[in-house]
Amino acid sequence: MKNCVSVGAKSMLNSIFFNAHHSPIGAYSSFTLGYKGAKGGFASELGKPADQNIYIGVESENADEYFALPFYRDHESDIQSFDPSTSIIQKLVSLIPFADNEISREFCVGTDTWNAGDLTISIYSPIHPIPDPTLINELKKPIIPAVFIEMTIDNSLGQKRKRAFFGFDGVDPYSGCHHIREGYEGLTGIGQGRNCSICTLDENVDSAIGFSIREILGNTIIKNRKFGLGSTAVLLMSTKPGEKKTFRFVLSFYKDGIVTTGISASYYYTKYYSSKEDVAIYGLSHFDEYIELAKKHDTIINQSKLSEEQLFMMTMAVRSYYGSTQLLSTLDGPLWVVNEGEYRMINTLDLTIDQMFFEFQQNPWTVRNVLEWFAKRCIYNDNVVFPGERKLFDGGVSFSHDMGVANQYAAEGHSSYELSGLKGCFSYMTHEQLVNWSLIALVYISNTDDTSFIKKNELLLEKCLLSMVNRDHPVPEMRDGVMKLDSVLVDGGSEITTYDSLDSSLGQARGNIYLAMKCWAAYVLFEKLFEKTGKESFRQCAGVQAALCANTLVKSVNADGYIPAILDGKSKSAIIPLAEGLIYPYYAGAVDAVSESGKYKELISVIKRHIQTIFTKKYCITEDGGWKLSSTSNNTWLSKIYLNQYIVRQILDIEGEMLAPDSDKAHMSWLLDENNSYYAWSDQFVCGNVQGSRYYPRGVTSILWLT
Amino acid sequence: MKNCVSVGAKSMLNSIFFNAHHSPIGAYSSFTLGYKGAKGGFASELGKPADQNIYIGVESENADEYFALPFYRDHESDIQSFDPSTSIIQKLVSLIPFADNEISREFCVGTDTWNAGDLTISIYSPIHPIPDPTLINELKKPIIPAVFIEMTIDNSLGQKRKRAFFGFDGVDPYSGCHHIREGYEGLTGIGQGRNCSICTLDENVDSAIGFSIREILGNTIIKNRKFGLGSTAVLLMSTKPGEKKTFRFVLSFYKDGIVTTGISASYYYTKYYSSKEDVAIYGLSHFDEYIELAKKHDTIINQSKLSEEQLFMMTMAVRSYYGSTQLLSTLDGPLWVVNEGEYRMINTLDLTIDQMFFEFQQNPWTVRNVLEWFAKRCIYNDNVVFPGERKLFDGGVSFSHDMGVANQYAAEGHSSYELSGLKGCFSYMTHEQLVNWSLIALVYISNTDDTSFIKKNELLLEKCLLSMVNRDHPVPEMRDGVMKLDSVLVDGGSEITTYDSLDSSLGQARGNIYLAMKCWAAYVLFEKLFEKTGKESFRQCAGVQAALCANTLVKSVNADGYIPAILDGKSKSAIIPLAEGLIYPYYAGAVDAVSESGKYKELISVIKRHIQTIFTKKYCITEDGGWKLSSTSNNTWLSKIYLNQYIVRQILDIEGEMLAPDSDKAHMSWLLDENNSYYAWSDQFVCGNVQGSRYYPRGVTSILWLT
Repeated sequence: MKNCVSVGAKSMLNSIFFNAHHSPIGAYSSFTLGYKGAKGGFASELGKPADQNIYIGVESENADEYFALPFYRDHESDIQSFDPSTSIIQKLVSLIPFADNEISREFCVGTDTWNAGDLTISIYSPIHPIPDPTLINELKKPIIPAVFIEMTIDNSLGQKRKRAFFGFDGVDPYSGCHHIREGYEGLTGIGQGRNCSICTLDENVDSAIGFSIREILGNTIIKNRKFGLGSTAVLLMSTKPGEKKTFRFVLSFYKDGIVTTGISASYYYTKYYSSKEDVAIYGLSHFDEYIELAKKHDTIINQSKLSEEQLFMMTMAVRSYYGSTQLLSTLDGPLWVVNEGEYRMINTLDLTIDQMFFEFQQNPWTVRNVLEWFAKRCIYNDNVVFPGERKLFDGGVSFSHDMGVANQYAAEGHSSYELSGLKGCFSYMTHEQLVNWSLIALVYISNTDDTSFIKKNELLLEKCLLSMVNRDHPVPEMRDGVMKLDSVLVDGGSEITTYDSLDSSLGQARGNIYLAMKCWAAYVLFEKLFEKTGKESFRQCAGVQAALCANTLVKSVNADGYIPAILDGKSKSAIIPLAEGLIYPYYAGAVDAVSESGKYKELISVIKRHIQTIFTKKYCITEDGGWKLSSTSNNTWLSKIYLNQYIVRQILDIEGEMLAPDSDKAHMSWLLDENNSYYAWSDQFVCGNVQGSRYYPRGVTSILWLT
Repeated sequence: MKNCVSVGAKSMLNSIFFNAHHSPIGAYSSFTLGYKGAKGGFASELGKPADQNIYIGVESENADEYFALPFYRDHESDIQSFDPSTSIIQKLVSLIPFADNEISREFCVGTDTWNAGDLTISIYSPIHPIPDPTLINELKKPIIPAVFIEMTIDNSLGQKRKRAFFGFDGVDPYSGCHHIREGYEGLTGIGQGRNCSICTLDENVDSAIGFSIREILGNTIIKNRKFGLGSTAVLLMSTKPGEKKTFRFVLSFYKDGIVTTGISASYYYTKYYSSKEDVAIYGLSHFDEYIELAKKHDTIINQSKLSEEQLFMMTMAVRSYYGSTQLLSTLDGPLWVVNEGEYRMINTLDLTIDQMFFEFQQNPWTVRNVLEWFAKRCIYNDNVVFPGERKLFDGGVSFSHDMGVANQYAAEGHSSYELSGLKGCFSYMTHEQLVNWSLIALVYISNTDDTSFIKKNELLLEKCLLSMVNRDHPVPEMRDGVMKLDSVLVDGGSEITTYDSLDSSLGQARGNIYLAMKCWAAYVLFEKLFEKTGKESFRQCAGVQAALCANTLVKSVNADGYIPAILDGKSKSAIIPLAEGLIYPYYAGAVDAVSESGKYKELISVIKRHIQTIFTKKYCITEDGGWKLSSTSNNTWLSKIYLNQYIVRQILDIEGEMLAPDSDKAHMSWLLDENNSYYAWSDQFVCGNVQGSRYYPRGVTSILWLT
């Protein structure tokens, strides 16, 4: 595959053994594979890989010798718990992992291919646009909860019939493994309870279950394959000497019935498929179309002008994102969810705003869907206070941090995350989420011209603007466009931002220039909206606030040439995400607002200088040439780096040496480090080590690189 | 509780910290509690305890100090994965397990009460008769998937308000914990996904979720209890000084939709309850009735004339049995399942025959239900062969060992367990299961006079008789009533018996005197049946075979006064289960057949002498005075000991010194040994150590002690 991120022997990657998701869209499921050992497998609704043995192997030229990809860890046969003296092996076989240097991998966004010896296995993850389910009822094909696999055994030079196998050890605590053979239109397969399966329509493939892979391979009595005990389930096949044969499999995920609490929701795919076998039959009957789609996306991505490092990171990020997506059906209509990686929080709003750029390319209706659910269910009213004071002022509305966690929906107006009395992680994100909802809505409106959305939400948008203003200052004359009051909900604490585990340079909301710039962006777009809707007083208010905010920032540049992170006269932190707010007007088409010759030219040139100033190892470049978001913390987020990279290059037009040219190499090496690559794509790193936000969806900000 | 198996400081038990099931009937669920550490909790569809922290505790007189029952293991707060530097504790609290000598336990079949300091907690497991669902539609009350709890805080001498708590750490891999507060008729609770919950209608109880029990207890901001992250969920309550207060909780289990493969089945309780909250509301509204029922059974059992050891073992066994029961609904009607403990095999037929004595007391329709499912789905035809020969003879019908495993139903006519080519564990049990199905049916017919069952199964019963005869010898003149041919399915191996992990003394089927005696019992009851139905040729055939079998056994007594286990002229093993077959005619009312003065008086007196001969430490008494079933193996099964104890005492009328008077003490000490008591009731022991069949349902053979 030319121009593909080939990661075989000739690759630039330091290891090909990294985990990657292979996920359907909206099934909150992943067939994760790539890290050595029992470190991948069929994960549904998990915040990590399934840690399941996966057996993919082929017989060698030697008698009773098999080679397998190294995605398993030998384990004692479960036969022990029955009778330690019993043996059911007819002959001893040896199972040997292929040596590292025999294995190559070609890794693309739709296809992940492993080759070793006579064995080639390609895992296809087709990427579909998902039609808006409120308009179109036919989602059967795009949301099929399946992954597609081709396994080729090249025995063209072989001297004997070679057996091959593909299977797993069941790890579901509640259900055992079973054979799929009867009553399913010629389907042969192995399943783990009702939850997942590997199936084929190839009648030369047989299923086997046993206490261990060795016992299954060492069994010579064909009918004994139909054993039911033991947790190892594999499909067995063979290829004649002189033959090269490809076997096709569909990996299905399925979860029936209501799967949530708080809101009662079921998987949307259950409208179209009645079981994992039903999924498999449909997938196998449309196999060509699905792999064509996967390959089409490989081509699109590979033909882009991205560097190999960028290609790799974007591919990983897209895969991790899809593994976190969940399309549900509720009594109130469809519910699009992105689960928050290892934390499994539901539609964390400060992730939604970053991920929206991806969905504007793919499925803009999902952005509207999340906005509507937040407006309906996650909205709350509050008062605000000055720090250290008790006097209450009007706050207005805001939105909860998330909708719940791990399939458990929080009570209306509440998140699973926010606590009172804190100044750091787990405090309220009231202002940030107010701005986030507003910006998502404003960008959505600009990008889609969805007038019914505007009409439905006009009053709420007005409230949002006023609520932002209220958090600046209760006295109009005292306003400067920047947040000065906390929600009373913090109860003596302080509001925080999405950078919750960073020091105050990015973590504190009040007086924060990152949040100020997002406010500025919202004011700019509010002004544009209310101009369009003819709400003059609101237009004016927004315009005034935008100007005030810009002014405040422009005059806050310090002697070193950058704006300190917190406008408290004390902060010395230099932060990259000052630039972050620029993306919203830009993406919404308000290009003038972010132009060095436009209405806010002073602000833009100050930001440009700020960025140019802090792009040194003294401030925001790591020892290995990566970006760190704040000069005063080693904690950094890849998703935000990707976003700010785009802004700095595309909007601020800073290129070349200035930008730490090896940063992508550094960032990729963090992901591929053996200590990190088990988690597929992760967001939060400290000195190149994963610190949190593992197995995470947010990296799709990298999609901006394609625009 | 007078006359109860009190296991407090004054108890005869060497430890009160043994696990016991607290289970609804037919929900395949257990709230297992009693073993120290994270070793109990809410288990559904598991072959072992849930290994979940359970928090049951109360505040002490000291500030910020709490005592708890020792059913948890301290763990790091999950807050680590978010931000290691964050703390959300407002004040440090200490949580101390009660000292062992402060804790007492009263353990009965319906009630399990723990007392420590000011805290008393009673767990009620009501035992209901379950109406036949094919006749009566109203099963809502008896099959409620719930356990009932009263927790009393005695603060009558206290100087301050004392807080108390009851909760758990969620361990479901797919779902988080959640609060139950709104929309459920005043219910307050904590839930783990949709699967289980603890709820109350007491409005003074509040729910809290957090990263650890210490963080929850150290939190002073009430609204922070509504946190959603972390896996620790508890209910909080408090009692005023001078007050003694009891809080009532319902523990609900719930699993929606189809839960099986092979056969599509859902839990029968889903017909009556829509969710775990629905279960809780009903349970709390009928709390008095349920605990009355639990206490009624305590009284019945405690008023029996059993020794304390017998009481204890029977209580454990009944609880373990109910934890394995599963009442399902299928398109073909109700399906009663007993899952096989740690192995989770479905309705293992050689367990059904032992457990039927319990169900004849409780719910005889369940016995019929299993018989019908086996007749419908688990029947197969075979040929038979002499050992080492290839010539095929007619076999006839038999039944698979089980219906499947861990909710996965095997293909029709197949078990999950049986393999070809073996001589030991996992070989076919063709003859044993043929005899088992026959005996269960024959005893069912005798005990219920269910003429429709007879009519429906008459042909099958005739086939069964002929199939047994075919396995004796193809030439009528060569028959001696004892099995001589194996099913061809063993493919060079040998059939085995339910004693699958024992040496050939009990493990081998051919020529085995244990199986021969069960055949004799079946022939005796077949003769009785066909006399009743007027099938003269079958009656005669059965009568001849019974006499042949009795004759063969009588003439096989060796010089030492016992019959060797295998009639091969070589065996030296002495086995107790020679007597086992006597139970079936006896229980079916054919008392004459087992009488020393009846038709088979020679057989009965030979068996009596056999038992008297082998009841010495040379043969079948262990060093510690327990029973071992075979003189040549240390492997022994408690369920079978219980059954044979009853037979030896009640039918053979052997009492006193002869019977190893301390055997019950020995057997109880095996169960209570710290290495074993994690598994609640287990079946298979080697020298007092659990060897297999852990967490097992079969011990309800002990119910015979009550008759």
